[in-house]
Amino acid sequence: MGDNKWSQLWLDYEAKKGAAKNAEEDKLKIDFEGFDPENRVIKSAVKELNKAFTDTDKKIVISFVRNDEIKKEGYSACGVIGGSDNRKVDADTTELVVSSSDENGALYGAFHIIRSKLMGEDLSCLCATKAPSNPLRMMNHWDNMDGSIERGYSGRSFFYENDDIVINERTVDYARLMASIGINGVVINNVNVKWAASDLITTRFFDKVKELSDIFGDYGIKLYLSLNFASPIEIGGLSICDPLDKEVIEWWKNKIKEVYEHLPELGGFLVKADSEGRPGPFTYGRTQADGANMLGDIIAPYGGIIIWRCFVYNCTQDWRDTKTDRARAGYDYFKGLDGEYHDNVILQIKNGPMDFQIREPISPLIGGLTRTNQMLEVQIAQEYTGHQIDLCYLIPMFKEILEFKTYCAEENDTVADVVSGRTMGNSLAGMAAVINTGNDYNWTGNDLAAANLYGFGRLAYDTDLDSEEIAREWVKLTFNLEKELEDKLVDMLLNSREIYEKYTSPLGIGWMVTPGDHYGPSVDGYEYSRWGTYHRADHLGLGVDRTDKGTGYAQQYYPENAQMYNDPKTCPENLLLFFHHIPYTWKLKSGQSLIQYIYDVHFEGYSKAQELLESWKSFEGKVPERTYNCVMHRFEMQVNNAHEWCDQVNSYFYRKSGIPDEKNRPIY
Amino acid sequence: MGDNKWSQLWLDYEAKKGAAKNAEEDKLKIDFEGFDPENRVIKSAVKELNKAFTDTDKKIVISFVRNDEIKKEGYSACGVIGGSDNRKVDADTTELVVSSSDENGALYGAFHIIRSKLMGEDLSCLCATKAPSNPLRMMNHWDNMDGSIERGYSGRSFFYENDDIVINERTVDYARLMASIGINGVVINNVNVKWAASDLITTRFFDKVKELSDIFGDYGIKLYLSLNFASPIEIGGLSICDPLDKEVIEWWKNKIKEVYEHLPELGGFLVKADSEGRPGPFTYGRTQADGANMLGDIIAPYGGIIIWRCFVYNCTQDWRDTKTDRARAGYDYFKGLDGEYHDNVILQIKNGPMDFQIREPISPLIGGLTRTNQMLEVQIAQEYTGHQIDLCYLIPMFKEILEFKTYCAEENDTVADVVSGRTMGNSLAGMAAVINTGNDYNWTGNDLAAANLYGFGRLAYDTDLDSEEIAREWVKLTFNLEKELEDKLVDMLLNSREIYEKYTSPLGIGWMVTPGDHYGPSVDGYEYSRWGTYHRADHLGLGVDRTDKGTGYAQQYYPENAQMYNDPKTCPENLLLFFHHIPYTWKLKSGQSLIQYIYDVHFEGYSKAQELLESWKSFEGKVPERTYNCVMHRFEMQVNNAHEWCDQVNSYFYRKSGIPDEKNRPIY
Repeated sequence: MGDNKWSQLWLDYEAKKGAAKNAEEDKLKIDFEGFDPENRVIKSAVKELNKAFTDTDKKIVISFVRNDEIKKEGYSACGVIGGSDNRKVDADTTELVVSSSDENGALYGAFHIIRSKLMGEDLSCLCATKAPSNPLRMMNHWDNMDGSIERGYSGRSFFYENDDIVINERTVDYARLMASIGINGVVINNVNVKWAASDLITTRFFDKVKELSDIFGDYGIKLYLSLNFASPIEIGGLSICDPLDKEVIEWWKNKIKEVYEHLPELGGFLVKADSEGRPGPFTYGRTQADGANMLGDIIAPYGGIIIWRCFVYNCTQDWRDTKTDRARAGYDYFKGLDGEYHDNVILQIKNGPMDFQIREPISPLIGGLTRTNQMLEVQIAQEYTGHQIDLCYLIPMFKEILEFKTYCAEENDTVADVVSGRTMGNSLAGMAAVINTGNDYNWTGNDLAAANLYGFGRLAYDTDLDSEEIAREWVKLTFNLEKELEDKLVDMLLNSREIYEKYTSPLGIGWMVTPGDHYGPSVDGYEYSRWGTYHRADHLGLGVDRTDKGTGYAQQYYPENAQMYNDPKTCPENLLLFFHHIPYTWKLKSGQSLIQYIYDVHFEGYSKAQELLESWKSFEGKVPERTYNCVMHRFEMQVNNAHEWCDQVNSYFYRKSGIPDEKNRPIY
Repeated sequence: MGDNKWSQLWLDYEAKKGAAKNAEEDKLKIDFEGFDPENRVIKSAVKELNKAFTDTDKKIVISFVRNDEIKKEGYSACGVIGGSDNRKVDADTTELVVSSSDENGALYGAFHIIRSKLMGEDLSCLCATKAPSNPLRMMNHWDNMDGSIERGYSGRSFFYENDDIVINERTVDYARLMASIGINGVVINNVNVKWAASDLITTRFFDKVKELSDIFGDYGIKLYLSLNFASPIEIGGLSICDPLDKEVIEWWKNKIKEVYEHLPELGGFLVKADSEGRPGPFTYGRTQADGANMLGDIIAPYGGIIIWRCFVYNCTQDWRDTKTDRARAGYDYFKGLDGEYHDNVILQIKNGPMDFQIREPISPLIGGLTRTNQMLEVQIAQEYTGHQIDLCYLIPMFKEILEFKTYCAEENDTVADVVSGRTMGNSLAGMAAVINTGNDYNWTGNDLAAANLYGFGRLAYDTDLDSEEIAREWVKLTFNLEKELEDKLVDMLLNSREIYEKYTSPLGIGWMVTPGDHYGPSVDGYEYSRWGTYHRADHLGLGVDRTDKGTGYAQQYYPENAQMYNDPKTCPENLLLFFHHIPYTWKLKSGQSLIQYIYDVHFEGYSKAQELLESWKSFEGKVPERTYNCVMHRFEMQVNNAHEWCDQVNSYFYRKSGIPDEKNRPIY
């Protein structure tokens, strides 16, 4: 391993081998029934099983059986005990049958068996039947072609270098890792499409994109591209990119035809339009639907889809203006167009109405739209959640999001229902994550951040998994820990999001981060800015009035939720300051005043960050040294960060409110 | 003019020509007595006179006469009426005599005549005797060799491009402009010496630096280089740069010998050591004197000097720490070494103890040192004073600085006395400015910012000039305005510094700027930072206690000043918050409370910024269109900036204090 430039993460079969290594490859036998052994995806499954099963001391027979009754990309993987099912089985042979209706199902079944093996389960007793909760399970890379990564905290891009595409063994490992957690779509370039990336749909890059697409295809993954809406201008030489202009439409027709000639398996395009300075239909007085449908219609004959991001808001707001509310923007811009989007267009909606804060309410657009394909966008790149320095296991947040009841229907009305397509019965639905990888040895900067990478994929495939289950799987697959330490690490992961929330910006207030960089505190950093991100703290209280007396944002929800959020007494306290401007003297349910809670929770968060570091010390010698040191270094940085957050936030609010800490702790 | 890439500023003879152009060059006759017409500086004087006197309708005879009784670089320039002084003069001939003891004096005398001519004075009546107040009158360029300029607001460098030196006609015009205002030393590279600039003292650049040095030499200007104290490591291949290490000393001996072989006229070196991350003697447990003297001793045989910056402070301060005070640092680090610096070493001291804020007290180091060569450093690059967008004529500030009574001696104890050498009788003394030029057409971004460039030179040569006199000279030389508009522009200049102070951070509090960039408000931007720059505002008041009960900074002054600053009742109000933490309810001498003053002064500043813009409208058609538009555009930006400052500062302090504006104006 020492010489490799990247780790194998949860697929590190070497590290998982027993001490007595007496494996013989021929002990694994693979049969096929209804599948072509030469199919590229089946070949990948076989290759992976052969890699994983080199150290077994029992004979193993795995049969891939086609069964059209199993759902798309689903599988059943079961051990066959004692020759049941009309099969002959030796006493010292484990036989497993993977049934699926398609090759992706077979591949996922194979990875299920591998997971079970690596976790030390008795394979002969295995019996699992799974089908993906979400049709689309995607990773969004914000990689730029110069090799930088927007909001990347794990080194440089492994897809690009010096405005060119890099393809090597790591590319294959990437595809294996993604397939192993059920990912079936990858957007390979930043949604902010600039410079060389505009040429990804030209002959300059077709060959290499095709090569990438083929590697992904071997693992059942479709390649997608982020599109520059201004391509007709930037690479087409036209003077406009008006989606209703005939010349523009003609240009796109030719362009997309050309693209599909070179990239026949392309999944489609992701588009960030009219957002944070990016071009879009608004420039020409057109609607978002005009833009998305134009592209959708042109790409439809090729089976492609258009994923249209809903991150549209006024990013030049006047901070003095308390009527305009960035939180409202998504709903305001998109709700009115519900039903107008064509069938192969899907709106990609960030989980919250702002931008990936440590806690936000669910975007009212999810479920608010009832006649539009929609998918959920989350961010495992820890932009606002600690830069993969601070530990922040995000799966509990994603679970909360998925379980949120929107009241958009009588039943099947949770976010999970909506984005999976269950609510509306649509098949273009799913989840996407802004990915947290880079070319660091450990892929994710902090070794422990790989839990988010693993967890997102697993959760997108099976939204019924719970956070602890996923954490435990990842810990078991990644490390060889005794039970006590495994429990400890799982606990650290499970508590980490609340710890981060405690020492940063709790009660739903968010922001208060260093502008631009988004790591570390700056309480007023975004307070007088153009970004629509304000806490409105004064000498009496803080928080944003988003009730019917304020910006009216709460009214964008269905009545049950609107009512709940509108009243500070029924509003969940962890979102209190998102919806209400609250006096420092307000009594929380705990009996603490708001200001005392601010002090207490920050001291507590800081102290818990220190505990995380202390806990990590018990892993010395129990995890690889490189991992131990890397994570320890990050915990040290996290403790410093928590210290700064705690003292700056407390000092800021003490200086503003003049109300001293009841416990007389150091505030400056 | 239209095709030129740069203007001639106050030497624009074309623009100053009368409408009836019937000039004949031979009408100007130049004589010499005791000067060699072939001397390079004399030749420049002659060339310049010939350029300037092409439109005269009278015969003019100018005689350069050597007179050893005139002070170094001084001159007397007088008209000779009616053939006095034993000279034969025609009735329709103006004869002028320039007497000086050296060539620089002759050149400055020539420029005096040119100024008088351009201002429309009767040359026959001219009689001026001048000698420079300061021996060293320097410009410090913060130009980097990649063409960027640290804190540059006027385009790119005209000295460098792509890590190479650029020499062209503009270089000559630069030297002419500098000589015309009496500058006799120029440091051509940024004090932060990095990358290619480290090679300025190697064969890579010797030839071109020599060429620059020659051009400067023609105009009586010495070229200086900023030095990288870590050169022995960075270009010498040594492992250390300890100033007391024999190998290091030997390396410097050889290096400086080599430098002077190639650059025999080099003035010396400017060194920023142990400052903001730059290397220095502290790394090796040595003193600043150890570092400066080592270089001083080695350069002495070549007649060179070492200018050592005193900008040394802890730039990784903990904001919680109220005992450490950045303002104290210069005095704390340097006072103890007073008397230990060798004769050819001069300490360059910023005017204030912080960093070029709109108002600071005078550095207590100036005059605090009584046995050390010292020169004053000011900044005409408007880093904290409006980025050459906002109008901020700085000469009134420089006058205040120069007139400040330090009490370091019974007489001759003002800053002007100290830095000119009058107090101690030393000849290594003077003033330096961080220059505000770039390759913009108008040199200074904002045409009106050229008043600072002009003014600094004039003031450094003659510290008795007053701010209005200098402003009026510059306006007369630069524009052809009727008297009323001339007065108006002079007024705009004279009021501009106080206007800027009013809408930004008055009462000596400073900072509150956007971190890094330093333009625009961010009240807490530097409040929780590592830079030692705090306002310590809480719900009761603001300001930094620097009295004997606080950081003790006030005690660094001589008793008269220490006492004055120590008591908020005697402390000048415009520095009140620099020295004291004052309650919002404190009554100022005007009767206003502190908080009401904050509100009033910000509204007033904003309104005055609007008035500046309004006033500028009357210059349409009266100044070149390019100038009018350029300046108008900047006034528009200034008004926006003032608006943001006003509203953000007022809102910040209202939200913190809870005390409403008595006049009920909009605060958010």
